[in-house]
Amino acid sequence: MVPYKELSREELERERRAMQKEHDLLRAKGYHLDMSRGKPCTAQLDLSNDMLDVVNSKTDVHSERGADCRNYGDVAGIDEAKRMLGDMVDVAADHVIVWGNSSLSVMHDVICNSMIKGVLGSTPWCQLDSVKFLCPVPGYDRHFTITEYYGIEMINIPMNEDGPDMDLVEKYVNNDPAVKGIWCVPKYSNPQGITYSDEVVRRFANLNPAAEDFRIFWDNAYCVHHLYEDKQDHLLEILNECEKAGRPDMVYEFFSTSKVTFAGAGISGVAASKRNLEEIRKQMSVKIISFDKLNMLRHAKYLVDQDGIQAKMKQHAEIMRPKFEMVLNKLTTDLKPLGIARWIEPRGGYFVAFEAMDGCATRIIELASQAGLTMTPAGAPFPYHKDPKDSVIRIAPSYPSEEELAMAMEIFVVCVKLASAEHMLKYMEA
Amino acid sequence: MVPYKELSREELERERRAMQKEHDLLRAKGYHLDMSRGKPCTAQLDLSNDMLDVVNSKTDVHSERGADCRNYGDVAGIDEAKRMLGDMVDVAADHVIVWGNSSLSVMHDVICNSMIKGVLGSTPWCQLDSVKFLCPVPGYDRHFTITEYYGIEMINIPMNEDGPDMDLVEKYVNNDPAVKGIWCVPKYSNPQGITYSDEVVRRFANLNPAAEDFRIFWDNAYCVHHLYEDKQDHLLEILNECEKAGRPDMVYEFFSTSKVTFAGAGISGVAASKRNLEEIRKQMSVKIISFDKLNMLRHAKYLVDQDGIQAKMKQHAEIMRPKFEMVLNKLTTDLKPLGIARWIEPRGGYFVAFEAMDGCATRIIELASQAGLTMTPAGAPFPYHKDPKDSVIRIAPSYPSEEELAMAMEIFVVCVKLASAEHMLKYMEA
Repeated sequence: MVPYKELSREELERERRAMQKEHDLLRAKGYHLDMSRGKPCTAQLDLSNDMLDVVNSKTDVHSERGADCRNYGDVAGIDEAKRMLGDMVDVAADHVIVWGNSSLSVMHDVICNSMIKGVLGSTPWCQLDSVKFLCPVPGYDRHFTITEYYGIEMINIPMNEDGPDMDLVEKYVNNDPAVKGIWCVPKYSNPQGITYSDEVVRRFANLNPAAEDFRIFWDNAYCVHHLYEDKQDHLLEILNECEKAGRPDMVYEFFSTSKVTFAGAGISGVAASKRNLEEIRKQMSVKIISFDKLNMLRHAKYLVDQDGIQAKMKQHAEIMRPKFEMVLNKLTTDLKPLGIARWIEPRGGYFVAFEAMDGCATRIIELASQAGLTMTPAGAPFPYHKDPKDSVIRIAPSYPSEEELAMAMEIFVVCVKLASAEHMLKYMEA
Repeated sequence: MVPYKELSREELERERRAMQKEHDLLRAKGYHLDMSRGKPCTAQLDLSNDMLDVVNSKTDVHSERGADCRNYGDVAGIDEAKRMLGDMVDVAADHVIVWGNSSLSVMHDVICNSMIKGVLGSTPWCQLDSVKFLCPVPGYDRHFTITEYYGIEMINIPMNEDGPDMDLVEKYVNNDPAVKGIWCVPKYSNPQGITYSDEVVRRFANLNPAAEDFRIFWDNAYCVHHLYEDKQDHLLEILNECEKAGRPDMVYEFFSTSKVTFAGAGISGVAASKRNLEEIRKQMSVKIISFDKLNMLRHAKYLVDQDGIQAKMKQHAEIMRPKFEMVLNKLTTDLKPLGIARWIEPRGGYFVAFEAMDGCATRIIELASQAGLTMTPAGAPFPYHKDPKDSVIRIAPSYPSEEELAMAMEIFVVCVKLASAEHMLKYMEA
């Protein structure tokens, strides 16, 4: 296999035609495959089925403090759930508030409240001419959807292999009072699988924001989502670092059990300083009497603590690892020698971020779609759905079966080769 | 027993001293009783314990459309839950969106979104100089908390025995474009237990609002919460009436199973026109991937339909009825002849609204507290916690046991008599 750039025009045209033929054959087979969604597969959901039995008509339904979990009360959640979630992210239980089944809702509600009411007494963001968020890219599309919905201007920050470009982050945060937040997925990031280095975390904690109401939105969604037992990333605990740096209020940390137990029926939470928590609790009491404490009880009894969580995540890894390895092996074998794409091999999380040649992502996804393979739309991991280089494609290996995934990757590499050859030929013509 | 107003000054002073003595005796006993909270009691929660078994590790966890309820998806809820909730309020399933465990959150989120984004394209409320809500009083304190939190001006509307004073409602809504909403609990209202008459509902549906983004917030919290089988109030279905009147978008209806199954772990929903639902669904997709579908499945399988709901509510009534009757009998026997208070005998809901002589509510609650009985604070059922007459006290009979309730009512009537005598004596002096 020869790198495409070393091929002559004729050789490349021959390659293009060969790939076109393969693509036509795949099209004719009428596949329906999906690598677009970061959803756990059925086997992963089955791992937690026993949790459905730990609260039943015969079991005690009281929290350890004696609250009847079926009734109203305990707006911030029950202690054992705070402790369990705190364990998951290395934060003490008294810095945790437990929410409903979606950490995205916590993030949304915090931003929403900042828009209308401000942050710890600051001017409400909706009264400001300009509100900006920094967005390390590629990132999580649903983060960007929230800020876009509320008309918050989003600024792309390039990701390095150890986290966001901190020179740029510092430049913006420390000088522009309109910069009110930054979206982070600090561990096994969506979609690259990057974990922020200790130095990056410390630079975050030592930011000196121009805006008093600047906050780091630390979405630790994949905190325990390792693929390997022997190769695990470690993330420095941010609350503690901010505390040490004298800015305990600068960060909100979000997390959930959505990808530990059930994606649609987990529990979520937020960790923050006492002042931030007090403000969040005030907001909560306006909108709800209490979230579902029976589901908190289910989770706390089932997962218990760090050990319980780790044991469960080990079972997940056994399902996820072969899928990730299949994707990565296929890319390495079929594409690496051709020099037409890059990717990072993640040690955890839910995605592989595939970087095609500039200007090829949209075409690859179009070709995949023609062959019956649904990918995450090009641009999705960027603010305003605009990938400046049109190169990043998010691959989500979790949901398809191994068989489906193998077939999907067959299709994918053909589409990448075809799009790349097309692109290079066009470039040669120009 | 002679009405207080027929007593001479000396007789009234004698009565006051007698009541003071009784109050002193009660104080000495060191009671701890609570009639403040509209919470179901343990026996009521026990009624739905079997629901905890209908979804377990051995049962199918798919919706009737085949969605795995453990996974992400179906942002607006599963069909069978829409149908069951729709059945509860006589609305077709395709006009229902299912939410999490709290209907208060739906109301909050709709108002929050109207503040920042407007309603179906109208100017966001946070950009207006003045936004007003009409508040039939006495009403539900948590409604008023939401509007107060967002700086929305609240205007008291007196309640008549068949609903809010509609002359006043029409005057405000049809003339003032700053009036954007009205809080209603149309059936077995909180706290009076009043059900809006057909005429009142029709007048609501035929409002001709000055503001295009005016909405009726129809919190049908007690839609099926009858105390009697043979004496039930009937509420005209509002969506249909608004549709007939040519204003299908003018109302949002809210409901939940919080007081059907578990107060803290039910499911809730909103019913509205297709246009309103589309807007709500858009907001939802920004903040959540899906609410807990396993809990929806649990509820749909357990309650099934109107018949299942009615059967469950009949069991609730058997627990609630004796408590309400105890409260009402005590009031009738001990207070009615004295002419110092009024109340409506509700046929459903969770409360009795007790109306003391003007200027006595705060004192009664203070005296009750001294004797170890916690009541809802005076003013709570009014915007800004201000009862203009200082006369309304919300009695919540559900949570205490019958024994506790009997004792609580003993204390209560003594406090009412003492406060009334004190007040009249003061008035005589003046």
